[in-house]
Amino acid sequence: MSTDTNADADDESTSKCGASSTTETETESSSGSKCGASSSDTSDDSGSKCGASGSSSSSSSSGSNCGASSSDDDSSSNEQEVGAKVDDFDADPGQLTAVGLGPGHAEGMTERAKNALLDADHIVGYTTYIELIPDEITEQADDIYDTPMCGEVSRTEESIDRTLAGNDVAIVGSGDPNVYALAGLALEILESKGATASMVDFEVIPGVPAAQSCAARLGAPLVNDTVSVSLSDHLVPMPEIESRLHSVASENFTITIYNPWSRKRRENFQKCCEILLTHRDEDTPVGIVHGAGREDEQVMITELAELEDLGESEIIDMTTTIVVGTEDTYVWDDRMVTPRGYETKYDY
Amino acid sequence: MSTDTNADADDESTSKCGASSTTETETESSSGSKCGASSSDTSDDSGSKCGASGSSSSSSSSGSNCGASSSDDDSSSNEQEVGAKVDDFDADPGQLTAVGLGPGHAEGMTERAKNALLDADHIVGYTTYIELIPDEITEQADDIYDTPMCGEVSRTEESIDRTLAGNDVAIVGSGDPNVYALAGLALEILESKGATASMVDFEVIPGVPAAQSCAARLGAPLVNDTVSVSLSDHLVPMPEIESRLHSVASENFTITIYNPWSRKRRENFQKCCEILLTHRDEDTPVGIVHGAGREDEQVMITELAELEDLGESEIIDMTTTIVVGTEDTYVWDDRMVTPRGYETKYDY
Repeated sequence: MSTDTNADADDESTSKCGASSTTETETESSSGSKCGASSSDTSDDSGSKCGASGSSSSSSSSGSNCGASSSDDDSSSNEQEVGAKVDDFDADPGQLTAVGLGPGHAEGMTERAKNALLDADHIVGYTTYIELIPDEITEQADDIYDTPMCGEVSRTEESIDRTLAGNDVAIVGSGDPNVYALAGLALEILESKGATASMVDFEVIPGVPAAQSCAARLGAPLVNDTVSVSLSDHLVPMPEIESRLHSVASENFTITIYNPWSRKRRENFQKCCEILLTHRDEDTPVGIVHGAGREDEQVMITELAELEDLGESEIIDMTTTIVVGTEDTYVWDDRMVTPRGYETKYDY
Repeated sequence: MSTDTNADADDESTSKCGASSTTETETESSSGSKCGASSSDTSDDSGSKCGASGSSSSSSSSGSNCGASSSDDDSSSNEQEVGAKVDDFDADPGQLTAVGLGPGHAEGMTERAKNALLDADHIVGYTTYIELIPDEITEQADDIYDTPMCGEVSRTEESIDRTLAGNDVAIVGSGDPNVYALAGLALEILESKGATASMVDFEVIPGVPAAQSCAARLGAPLVNDTVSVSLSDHLVPMPEIESRLHSVASENFTITIYNPWSRKRRENFQKCCEILLTHRDEDTPVGIVHGAGREDEQVMITELAELEDLGESEIIDMTTTIVVGTEDTYVWDDRMVTPRGYETKYDY
């Protein structure tokens, strides 16, 4: 995508969305909710601040109205060039905020995250994450830009181009923006465009990471030293991942495994299970949480020896987080407990 | 503390608090806010639900009215016996919830955490954490029980005794209840009392951990595989901590260091810095965040070689979290960036 196309697409889309009666009739919300001026520091959606378009409450259609062409999605997982440079934009840059939504339900968001989304003119994100945001928030935005999975780079660049074009933009993800997420990519792309983080007042708003959402469902597996490892070798070579697994499995860390399984790379998961078993007992407790906080949430506590076979089952996919206990972790009353060590100090 | 004392203290305290006009005059809040019935699923503090005591908005005084004797605090860091067993309680148990408050400001709490606190009859926690909770929430509780630091065991047992006595109790901590926190201790003490987690409908409500709050202030240091290590050897022997540091420093993890320094054990911090320097370059970026999200927050980005000397400075104490970058981490525009690896896949 070239600079001009982006800049145009951006301005165009905003007005398009503003005018698109199709989009508006597609929204679930009443005319009151069409009043969508971005309201600072308030979740007031009473409609008393009429002005901008409310089309954004139908994120997919506004997304398609607003420049998320399928070519973006197709190309995003291949090599691509980042086009627009900071000098290509005339406007005073807006503000760019990376917002962590936490687990997959609105109650899991922080007040600060909600306020940041309400302050944003544009909200950008992976379609599934955009759909986690309550309508009363998306309805307040001038525009929603969402793309399917694997659009990370094009989506992040779009959020930056929209910011450099003068809009206040929130780019969202589930969990926390620092956990295998887009905060770093946003800074990398800003730099590559000749912009700076200060220029767009770049801010990261933390959220509850998947490790914590899942641990909460399992009991108290993470109360001691812990490590997070992703099994996705899309960006980190598998030998490096294997080496990390060996080093932490030989120490007494709880191990949280992100991105455990996909059809394309089931052998990473098998290899991971083998490595863990070379260092930890077969009966080491393992907690599995699928779609934490979402409608399709599933929770299972099993033993390390059983883990590999579960790879082919429904409960383990890319929305699953796995917590592997330490040698001290035990299961009690359907909870995983990693003792903090108090019993060595106290008699109870 | 014996069962009966506790059980009595509990009932007594509730009524005491209800009657304590001293306490009420000590509250910062108006008469409207004295209406403090625990209101479920609502943050309504309009005062339209008068009934229970509002003394709880002055947490320290209600604490002292409600059983937090100084002997608890003195003894809590020494060996002690957990007294009351489940059979000593006649009432139907209430609900016990471990609530993560996230970083040190109300905006950092999730909606779910706020609702859990509003649902609780009693809120129990370390005084400093209780003070992080907005008055409009504490005013809704029948009672607040807070003790100074090092009261973990007595405080957690108190929360369990109050639950077994029939109250719905929330035990709070900053960050997340699974991160070096009380979720595990609560389960351990429940078990030791012959109770079960199901009996009190034990639930953990996750919060934003310090690692994420601090990473957000620093930029994007944690976007790849990460590890958390606490330097407190109160509950984990130092040789084990050293071994863990060696194993993860030799791999390319970002390392978040909790409880880095106290006057009593400055040598742990010195040892940690030495170990990190045996595996990582002197100019490895290190982020230091003191009192994340609190009024006295301080943020500094420095180099690994400088870290040890900062141990004696104000910025590093028990409220400080330190993020040690990987060999890929760099500093750009006052932000720490750990590249996710996208540049190996994309040209930008």
